[in-house]
Parts: sequence; structure tokens; C-alpha cells
Amino acid sequence: MIYLDNSATTKPSDSCISEINRCLKENWGNPSSLHIMGFNAEMAVNEARNKVARLIKARDDEIYFTSGGTESNNTAIFSAAYSKSKQGKKIVTTAIEHPSVLEPMKRLENEGFEIIRLKPSASGKVSIEDIEKTIDAQTVLVSIMLVNNETGATQPVEAAARAIGRNAPYALLHCDAVQGFGKIPIDVSKLGVDLMSISGHKIHGPKGIGVLYKKKSVNLKPLILGGGQEKNLRSGTESVPLIMGLGGATDDLKDVAKNLEKMKELNLAARKILLDTGIVLLNSDDECLPYILNISVPGYRSETLLHFLENKGIYVSSGSACSKGKGSYVLSEMGLDSKRIDSGLRISFSRFNTVCEIEKLAKALIDATAVLRKAK
Amino acid sequence: MIYLDNSATTKPSDSCISEINRCLKENWGNPSSLHIMGFNAEMAVNEARNKVARLIKARDDEIYFTSGGTESNNTAIFSAAYSKSKQGKKIVTTAIEHPSVLEPMKRLENEGFEIIRLKPSASGKVSIEDIEKTIDAQTVLVSIMLVNNETGATQPVEAAARAIGRNAPYALLHCDAVQGFGKIPIDVSKLGVDLMSISGHKIHGPKGIGVLYKKKSVNLKPLILGGGQEKNLRSGTESVPLIMGLGGATDDLKDVAKNLEKMKELNLAARKILLDTGIVLLNSDDECLPYILNISVPGYRSETLLHFLENKGIYVSSGSACSKGKGSYVLSEMGLDSKRIDSGLRISFSRFNTVCEIEKLAKALIDATAVLRKAK
Repeated sequence: MIYLDNSATTKPSDSCISEINRCLKENWGNPSSLHIMGFNAEMAVNEARNKVARLIKARDDEIYFTSGGTESNNTAIFSAAYSKSKQGKKIVTTAIEHPSVLEPMKRLENEGFEIIRLKPSASGKVSIEDIEKTIDAQTVLVSIMLVNNETGATQPVEAAARAIGRNAPYALLHCDAVQGFGKIPIDVSKLGVDLMSISGHKIHGPKGIGVLYKKKSVNLKPLILGGGQEKNLRSGTESVPLIMGLGGATDDLKDVAKNLEKMKELNLAARKILLDTGIVLLNSDDECLPYILNISVPGYRSETLLHFLENKGIYVSSGSACSKGKGSYVLSEMGLDSKRIDSGLRISFSRFNTVCEIEKLAKALIDATAVLRKAK
Repeated sequence: MIYLDNSATTKPSDSCISEINRCLKENWGNPSSLHIMGFNAEMAVNEARNKVARLIKARDDEIYFTSGGTESNNTAIFSAAYSKSKQGKKIVTTAIEHPSVLEPMKRLENEGFEIIRLKPSASGKVSIEDIEKTIDAQTVLVSIMLVNNETGATQPVEAAARAIGRNAPYALLHCDAVQGFGKIPIDVSKLGVDLMSISGHKIHGPKGIGVLYKKKSVNLKPLILGGGQEKNLRSGTESVPLIMGLGGATDDLKDVAKNLEKMKELNLAARKILLDTGIVLLNSDDECLPYILNISVPGYRSETLLHFLENKGIYVSSGSACSKGKGSYVLSEMGLDSKRIDSGLRISFSRFNTVCEIEKLAKALIDATAVLRKAK
């Protein structure tokens, strides 16, 4: 099996699995219980909280566990928009956000908010100029992803923070960092974000756990109400097994910057190997996060290629996992032609992938086009 | 260790743990992925969906996975209230619901809804007469728990369904069944509910997974938006490990009715043993769900007793886990005197508890009062 779909989800790491089992077998108390079993569970939750906090240079009390990136995005956007609506109704975001940002924006638009969706250039990046021009005194929320999930294009989040500092006294800055967390070094203060969303299962953690980073000074109304867990921002019994699993996964990351260097080498090799086939176009430019490489094989439909590769034990994605089967709106917003969009494939790496695997992918793509050409 | 706090949380069952590991090690694909790894994950999710559906006699497509009972309650209540607000603003609930129902009700009240909170009698039950009197043509939502989490008092949910059928053409019936699911046989059609909330970790499943049952004919707007998972009612990558774990836990339940019979015997024995100490008053009457036995030891504060018992390796709860440290509003609503409220303890059983453990609890309570009396 050659798994090249790591932006969809990743294989749980060893420490992730062992921490989950430690919870299930030994530390299964309810953190809200007043006896020692509750205390032990609470300690384990806070240990994982500290691990996540250190990874993004935040304070422990700025880390809130949620059920995933989608819930984090929803909480940040709805809560920020509603809490700021007296100051203004203008929200700035991009046209290439994840559906868990785009859909809440649509609902807010129906409720009377003005949503500005910045478009990317052909590189997949929204421009600093557009950001600076658009963010103004009426803006109450800016939501920009750190890394696009289909192309790996990193977005100028810091520029948005600077523009807010200059022009938008009421605006909060939210960043969907699901595809960047654990892959590039993040310092929330330097990035200048007020709110940031993180997911566990993109970094070899389990599915069903995420984090909302909330800057200490920011007040948010919860989306989910109840027993007051997570300092009242996110009620519901904490998913201790998944929280401990996420902690384990962050341990296994070890050195994020070093991993990134290795990934740059792998990505560079992949670009060369795939271009050498003579049938592949690259949709991710050199500045994209090396964990993701979006390609097209013009003339062949993404899904057909995907299933051909699958038969060879190679797993990739057409578009993102979350937009099952639909044509990529991200490539479309970048202005690519329909032939390129229809044949788009997302290759996404983890630290477990090798150059040899990419050579096999290239060979399989050549085989695919040979077989499919005959079938035409 | 004698664990008598099973209404706070339960020890994950063997099949729960093995299913979670099967997911983490072998079946860790993203259900939204178009390749076989996605398909396998989706199959596992649907297998668990079927297990839950069978347990409450629902259709598979009426089962929606959420992150827990709290999210299920929030989704049901907010979504039902907002979708029905054009027909009316009257909501009927009880004063003894879980905080994850009470808090959303408070928010709705602040937003202009009229919330009627029915009070229980000294038995801990709200009366059928009150339900029939209160539910009228203006009512758009009724939310009544199946089993109270502190006393085990079962509530007349079927009576609410009948009253709605007679008097409230626009009303939806929601039931928080977190403490009843897997403990008493449930047939959603007979119960007459439109929406029902379920939690995994109260039945030896993992923490962080829940279910919202939604009757096929009912339309709800999602609380969490994004990639459209769970038929668009609950976006976000499915927590496959926890969903499979919940499936495993339901397998291990085997015969719910038979377990209940055993629990009745254990509860009956517990009542006798505890009353025989001469220091215990029972706050749960004979009709309460036998999995829960609320007691008071007048003259001794709950927390003091709890920690004394903890030192003997016996774990119980003061009030519910979710109302950490506060005096019980449930016992207070029942009209019990303050001495009884202040000394309330919740003993909650699982199928793993024995009469011998309860004898040890009784002895420890006698020891506690002896020691604490001296210290006074």
C-alpha cells in the first residue's frame, strides 16, 4: 500500500494509539468527577493541552478541545460574528477556504452579514494587496486559512494581522490552520491571530478531536452549552481518549522544522519525477507547503485516475476528501482551465512516504494513461 | 477499587476497546475518501449506525453521530426551536434536565422564547397532569429527559407524546435519553419522540461520541456546517474510532432487558443494606431506574463523605459529575430539605457491580460517620 492521501487523514502514530489505550484501560474517569479518577483524567487532559500549547507557542489556557477542525471553525466564526455584530457586519475571507468556513459564511450572509471572499491568483494565494485594500474599519472578522488543503498554497495570514492592526480596530482574526498545524512551525503571537483552528487526524492523531486556540483577551460565546467544561467555552464531557491520543501524536512529531526540511526534499524529488513522465502538470507552485502537491493529467478524469491508482494500491485524492466527487472549486478559483480542473489529483505526503513510492506513482500514472488511451 | 459512579462515566468494554484499536491500526481511512480506505471506514461507520438503530428500534437513516450527549441536546433544542419559531415560541421542559438542556433553554429564553419548566414531585418525577395542562397549541418544542441523571427517576415521555398528539400540532418532542439508553429497552416509535439524545460513555463506550436520533419526517437545520457529513446534519470528519467503539459497546450490552432485571435485584439489595445502616435516607423511590440510587446521610456533607469513601477505594458522586461541587438542583426541585440536599450522594451501578461491593460501601459509610462525628 502506498498512501499519498495524508491531507485527507493520516495513520494514527504509535504514541497516539498507546495513549488512547492507556486512557481506555487505566484512565477512563470523567474529568468532572470529584474523586481521584476524575482528577487523573483531568491531569491527562491538561498534559495534552500543554503539548498542543507548546507546539504553537500559546498559553495552556488558550487551548480549547473541540470535536475537530470543523467544530473549531464553526465556533470561531459564528461566535466572533455574533459577538461583534453591533460594531459592524463586514467579514473578509477567501474563496478557497474549507467548506467548514465557507458554509458558516453562507449562513451569516443569509442573516445579513456582508461577506467579502478574496480570490487567489493562479498561484493559489490571495494577494497581500487585496487583503490590505479590503480590511477596513467596518470589518469585524477576518478568516483566512494558513495552508490551502487542495494545493498547499500558504496564505498571507500575517499580512491580514497587520492590516487589522492598521485599519480595523474591531476585527478579530481567525485562521483555519488545520493543514498547517504540526507541519510548519507556528507561533500564534507572530502570526497575529485571535482564533485558530486545529485538527488531530491530519497529524497522525485520531479523528474526532480538534482544538480552538483563543487568545486570552478575546471573549467568545460558546456554540455548545451545558456543564461548563473547557472553561465554559465548550461543554460536554471531554473526549479524554482522543485528547490523550492527540497528545501522543504531537509527541511523535518531534521536530516540526526538521520534518519540513525533509518534506521539501521529498516534494522536490516528486516534482521532478512527475514532470519527467511528460503527462503531468503541477498545480502547486514552488512556494506551496511541501506536504501537498496538486497535479493534473490533462485528458484523464480525476476519479478515473484515482480508481486506477487505487487498483495498484496507491491512494490519492481528487480534490479534498470533504468535497466528495465534486469538481475542485479551489482550482477553479485559481483560474485553471476545465481540462486541468477535471483531471486534478491531490498527492499529499507524510513523514512516512519515500521517493521510491513516488516513482511507483509516476509509473502507475504512465500505465494509467496508456490503458485509458486504448480504452477511449 | 469499587466503582459506583457509572452515571458519570463507565469503564470501556472489551469490544469497545478492540473496535477502537481495529480502527486505529487497520481501518483509519477518511469515510469521505473516494478510494477503498474511505469505503471501508464508511462501512464501519454504517455498521455501528445499524447497531445503535436496532437498539432503539429506529431506522439506520435516523441515526446521526455527534460528539456526545451535550452536542445532541444542543443540536436538537436550538435547531427545533429556530425551525419552529414562526409557529410559536412556547417551549415546555422540566426543571431537572441536564445542564446541556437547561443552558440552551436559558439562551432561548434570553432570545424571546417562553420556557415552561415543569417541577417534579418529591418522587423526582414530573406529573402527567402538569404535562397535559401545559402542552398546548402554542407549544413548538417539548424536551423531557427519559431518566433523571441524579435520582434515576423516569419521566413520563410517552404522556408528553400523547399530549402533543392531542393539543400541539406544531410541537416536536425531544428526549434526552442519555441515562436510559442501553439500560432500558427503548422503542422510539412507542416512546413517540421526534428527537432523542444518546451518549456513548454511559454504556461502556468511549467519551466523545453521541447520537442524535431524528425521526425521518422531521427537518432540522444543522448546528455545525461544513463538508456535509452525516447527511448534512452534522459536518466534520466522522470520529470513526469512537463510532466503532460505540458499536463495540452496544455489542457488549447483549440483552438490555435481562441486564435490567439483574440491576433490579442489585438495587433492591442495595436499598436494604444501606437502610440497615440506620444512617441512610433514600432519595430515589422504588420506581426509579435501578442503575441509580440517590441517598443522603444527614449531618454529613456530600463532598466530605465522597472523599472519605475515595480513601477506601470507593468511588461515588455528589450530585452529577457535570455540576462539579455545586449543591444538587435536582434534589432541591424535589423539595427535599437542605440537610438532605447537602448530604446527597449518587450511587450508580453497572453490570460489573456486586452485592459484596455494596456491603463494603455500607460499612465505609458507617466508619465515615463514626470518624467524622469524633472530628466534630
